[in-house]
Amino acid sequence: MVKIAVMGYGTVGSGVVEILSKHADNIASRAKERIGIKYILDRRDFPDSPYSGKFTKSFDTILNDPEVRIVVEVMGGLHPAFEYVKSCLENGKSVVTSNKELVAMKGAQLLKIAQKNNLNFLFEASVGGGIPIIRPISQCLAANEVIGIAGILNGTTNFILTKMIREGMSFQESLAMAQKLGYAERDPSSDVGGLDACRKICILASLAYGKHVYPDQVHTEGISKITLADVEYAASWGGVVKLIGMVRKTDSGKIQIMVCPMFLSRESQLANVDDEFNGIMVRGDSTGDVVFYGKGAGKLPTASAVVADVIDCVKHFKARKYLYWDDGSPDYVEDYREYETAMFVRGKAADEFSAFQTVDKLFGRVERLSRKVPEPGEVAFVTKKMKEKEIAQQLQQASQEGIQILNTIRIGDL
Amino acid sequence: MVKIAVMGYGTVGSGVVEILSKHADNIASRAKERIGIKYILDRRDFPDSPYSGKFTKSFDTILNDPEVRIVVEVMGGLHPAFEYVKSCLENGKSVVTSNKELVAMKGAQLLKIAQKNNLNFLFEASVGGGIPIIRPISQCLAANEVIGIAGILNGTTNFILTKMIREGMSFQESLAMAQKLGYAERDPSSDVGGLDACRKICILASLAYGKHVYPDQVHTEGISKITLADVEYAASWGGVVKLIGMVRKTDSGKIQIMVCPMFLSRESQLANVDDEFNGIMVRGDSTGDVVFYGKGAGKLPTASAVVADVIDCVKHFKARKYLYWDDGSPDYVEDYREYETAMFVRGKAADEFSAFQTVDKLFGRVERLSRKVPEPGEVAFVTKKMKEKEIAQQLQQASQEGIQILNTIRIGDL
Repeated sequence: MVKIAVMGYGTVGSGVVEILSKHADNIASRAKERIGIKYILDRRDFPDSPYSGKFTKSFDTILNDPEVRIVVEVMGGLHPAFEYVKSCLENGKSVVTSNKELVAMKGAQLLKIAQKNNLNFLFEASVGGGIPIIRPISQCLAANEVIGIAGILNGTTNFILTKMIREGMSFQESLAMAQKLGYAERDPSSDVGGLDACRKICILASLAYGKHVYPDQVHTEGISKITLADVEYAASWGGVVKLIGMVRKTDSGKIQIMVCPMFLSRESQLANVDDEFNGIMVRGDSTGDVVFYGKGAGKLPTASAVVADVIDCVKHFKARKYLYWDDGSPDYVEDYREYETAMFVRGKAADEFSAFQTVDKLFGRVERLSRKVPEPGEVAFVTKKMKEKEIAQQLQQASQEGIQILNTIRIGDL
Repeated sequence: MVKIAVMGYGTVGSGVVEILSKHADNIASRAKERIGIKYILDRRDFPDSPYSGKFTKSFDTILNDPEVRIVVEVMGGLHPAFEYVKSCLENGKSVVTSNKELVAMKGAQLLKIAQKNNLNFLFEASVGGGIPIIRPISQCLAANEVIGIAGILNGTTNFILTKMIREGMSFQESLAMAQKLGYAERDPSSDVGGLDACRKICILASLAYGKHVYPDQVHTEGISKITLADVEYAASWGGVVKLIGMVRKTDSGKIQIMVCPMFLSRESQLANVDDEFNGIMVRGDSTGDVVFYGKGAGKLPTASAVVADVIDCVKHFKARKYLYWDDGSPDYVEDYREYETAMFVRGKAADEFSAFQTVDKLFGRVERLSRKVPEPGEVAFVTKKMKEKEIAQQLQQASQEGIQILNTIRIGDL
């Protein structure tokens, strides 16, 4: 019997405990040992829980119990999760976590400690919830160079955008509905602002290219500026608006990485990822595009990924899993203003005809877009592919020539 | 340095050799040992190959060389692949294969020998080419009960159906184009007749439920009877025709398993899997639906999956991978005529009005379908959900009452 501790008895933590109990026999046969929960760490009391005897408020009890060989960290947040996980790894305990903030901020450091102590630090559940993605990237695609990764990594924003696209609900209405259904938190800023997706693409990029990327190195835009007008123009262009996290390696050995809303063509495999689902596309030089799709969050999907990691830990007490990346560096990420992209632009002008004359002068030939019920004075178009900084310059010029720029959205090439 | 042998230097074999050379450093760092090809077995001569010194026509040379610890079998076909693989496993060599026929016919037997000798027998490439699917099912979903699996498992037939759906080409024209482009073999019968998909769903079913399912236990229908009329009716019903392999567990502990064309609603995640791509949906009790999408065949995608298995073998000389299923039994698969399904029916009658009267009498209320340019005397409808044997009975009755049944296609509930 392998003894483990679960730190945090919230949504994911209670799911982990539930799955470990419900599937105990099946899990034992997979892991070749029974797995028993010795402690559950939580500040709260659960007197009526069938596991009430296992609860503790003392992290030191777990840390100092040599019988505990694996610790599951599902508390979330950076502190004290980081200090706890670090102490566990320094004290000979393998750690499994679903905490994307922890991995995105401290991954390299914790992986180094794990390696030094010949322990596992696993985090399949930190990206894509129940979708297997960390393992496929690290193992199955070992025979590939990863050309790039792009994904819909946040279920909350995808739910909101889907409501806007399919039902014509406004951003505010959709957000309110997501909150009512439990898909969005009361403070939705880290979802809506793109930070959650940013943490996830940082983890995937670090894993795929072997070097840590920190969230503050990533240009990140959320979806709060997306309006129904943008959604309509995307449709008339032939696609949908999605919040995309993407990374790719450049010839110089640096990476391009970004989180932002994008127009995706209806042909894109990610365009059909709707509602609260996630979809992640990995482009390998041998495999071509491989796409993983499923529920990116939720109690049981996420908990089942945590439990799979626990099983893997038990099977690999001796043979450590290969999961490692080096520390990052400040110049590793290219300035996003140097990326080339085509850009959707929506603006307002006194006179559409002369506005488009200005646009054509500044951008060369653009693709003009229209929508069913035209707004007087509205101009909408897609530029050709050019560097972001050049687009920004021309838009500034356009604005000086009387076109008020209301929104810009990149055209995804996925 | 770990020495391996590659048996078969066809499409996949040459891809394996190419990837092992091209990515040698990256692979060595993943496997923690360099991997060297000592022999390539092929009946043909390759005097101009850069690997010409490694070729042998003698299997015994490989078998009797104790330095060879891993053998890659990419010859295809059942004989002599089975005898070779069996001998290798009995002589202390782990085996990696892409041979779906071998795994579908002999998997349980070979896994037993591998287990007895504490060796690995791995076959990620046998299903879905470069899409990771065997590993995710066996590992990541260990904390789930698999409710069912359904997939588009054959790229050739999916290419043909996509051409029919998108471009209105006939089955014969589409097949000819697939052959011209190298997606279909000169003798396309095992693709078109469903046998290839059948072998793959057998492998997935055996893995998911721990008990071997043999291809001859699976009711299998191909796509050669699908006409453009069926494709048009599918569109008017709101979907597409796809060749689906599916399996699910029943309450009695038996399984339902089948390969056949199906109408899929456009909302289904599998409906958008087009061209030569594969898509596999795994429904877990904790994860919900997880879908894997990518190229299901081709030299480099398949070879990269083989190489990933080789790396895993090297990393697991001591800790055997958990990959196992028991032998099958004749009564393990339910009679498909006991399955419930809704059915699309296309028929011909002297008089449509009275034909539909007959249909309504036999089936209760059906959903009548129409197409743009109606064919005089053609009747098309979808039955409610009922047992296949009951549908067959009623159709026999219909045929006695003057309705000639031209085709029937199951309605997928995916």
